[in-house]
Amino acid sequence: MARIGLIAFGGRLPVEVAASAEVHVVTFAGVETLLTPTSGTAHRFETLGRVVSELRSVGTERIVLAGSLKRPALDQTAFDSETRALATALSVAVKRGDDAVMRLVIGFFEGQGLEVLGAHEVAPHLVAEPGLVAGPAPADGHRADADRAEAILGALGPLDVGQAAVVAGGRCLGIETVQGTDAMLRQVAETPAHHRPDAAGVLVKWAKDGQDLRADMPAIGPVTVDLAARAGLAGIVVEAGRVLILDRAAVVAAAEDAGLFVLARGE
Amino acid sequence: MARIGLIAFGGRLPVEVAASAEVHVVTFAGVETLLTPTSGTAHRFETLGRVVSELRSVGTERIVLAGSLKRPALDQTAFDSETRALATALSVAVKRGDDAVMRLVIGFFEGQGLEVLGAHEVAPHLVAEPGLVAGPAPADGHRADADRAEAILGALGPLDVGQAAVVAGGRCLGIETVQGTDAMLRQVAETPAHHRPDAAGVLVKWAKDGQDLRADMPAIGPVTVDLAARAGLAGIVVEAGRVLILDRAAVVAAAEDAGLFVLARGE
Repeated sequence: MARIGLIAFGGRLPVEVAASAEVHVVTFAGVETLLTPTSGTAHRFETLGRVVSELRSVGTERIVLAGSLKRPALDQTAFDSETRALATALSVAVKRGDDAVMRLVIGFFEGQGLEVLGAHEVAPHLVAEPGLVAGPAPADGHRADADRAEAILGALGPLDVGQAAVVAGGRCLGIETVQGTDAMLRQVAETPAHHRPDAAGVLVKWAKDGQDLRADMPAIGPVTVDLAARAGLAGIVVEAGRVLILDRAAVVAAAEDAGLFVLARGE
Repeated sequence: MARIGLIAFGGRLPVEVAASAEVHVVTFAGVETLLTPTSGTAHRFETLGRVVSELRSVGTERIVLAGSLKRPALDQTAFDSETRALATALSVAVKRGDDAVMRLVIGFFEGQGLEVLGAHEVAPHLVAEPGLVAGPAPADGHRADADRAEAILGALGPLDVGQAAVVAGGRCLGIETVQGTDAMLRQVAETPAHHRPDAAGVLVKWAKDGQDLRADMPAIGPVTVDLAARAGLAGIVVEAGRVLILDRAAVVAAAEDAGLFVLARGE
């Protein structure tokens, strides 16, 4: 079977995908990634047509986009014809949020005849399955906090905002915005004591309603656990089936070390 | 007419209320306030019955609660009978959010036969009226960002979360949680450049849906303008009729200095 094209962005997810299947790795200049491009050459976002040509030349029919992408600066004068056709739609999508951009990019590759898979399809062992992943069983109060965080994320999902929130003793200490989950957890850690209830609090990470899981599927890793512990939280609740757990052994070890629970629920 | 009882917490609002009516000032030990108690003695939250007695003794029939209150630590062994009756409901309300606590306290004073007014009723000149308060007219892009921030706050309001949000070029840079508007603006100021769109962005401050305006009515002041400018924002949009503008002359001066607009809309 032909190799899967792996469009590799930042972080650990592309590494775990590459370890799970035969892949042809595509990288972009200016985007930090832990992988080396199979062709030896990094691509440019201005010339997506060449990415498609390279993938076709190695017989690839299916691709997966994986990892975190910081919005790149684009040089409009360097666009090839395929990318130029995308430019107007892209400028609109950028204003709608990350999901809109990723949906557009996915649509572009599909329009070129490539099938776009999700990282969860290529590496299904990364998907959180229902149940306690690590640490002590959550108390009723933690479940109530998780319920409230879920309700907050549920209200925001249709607006393409919010993949994570922190609630402690019923009080909302943080809602993720474009800065990401780690930045939110750092702010929770800095919250003055008089704003902190007695309850430790819970981080909830949930896929947005209607989110295309092939685009920026939510994930946690050991850094998430570490930052949650530093923020004084009792645990992490992720959506079973729709959130990835990266470097699971390290996640479990970090959670057990910190006495912090990791629970997948919701399926 | 009998003086209005002013339960004075932190910040400038109690000062502006005191300047707008004949008041009898009540303060609490451990709560910073800019005012001096009329009786010369600060009260304790554990003995709210004494607050009611004092107000009755000076013939007060109407009160106003004004200013910001950090959650005080309560000594349950010091509760008087009036406050003890409130204790169970209070512990539930604390978990529901700030509004729930303030509604409970308002209900307590009402139950004691006192009429509870809002700061906006005692000092109506503080209320934002529709129109441009200061600075240049907002561009269409700013209005679109304000629309999106309003939609986000509208989705959260029923959950008793979020009085403010920042949106820039369609991307949400911040949603206020328990730490307050100032803390959110500081985090927006620290947002890495790659997360910032070209658009400067707008702060929207809105009363929560169904919010009792007698409890913690949203307000902006010169510090809000200063922090918004430091966060690189183009302007501030507040809900006309339901947000207070404190120290308006300083707000206007700070906004004009920074080239930042302040707009009230929505009535």
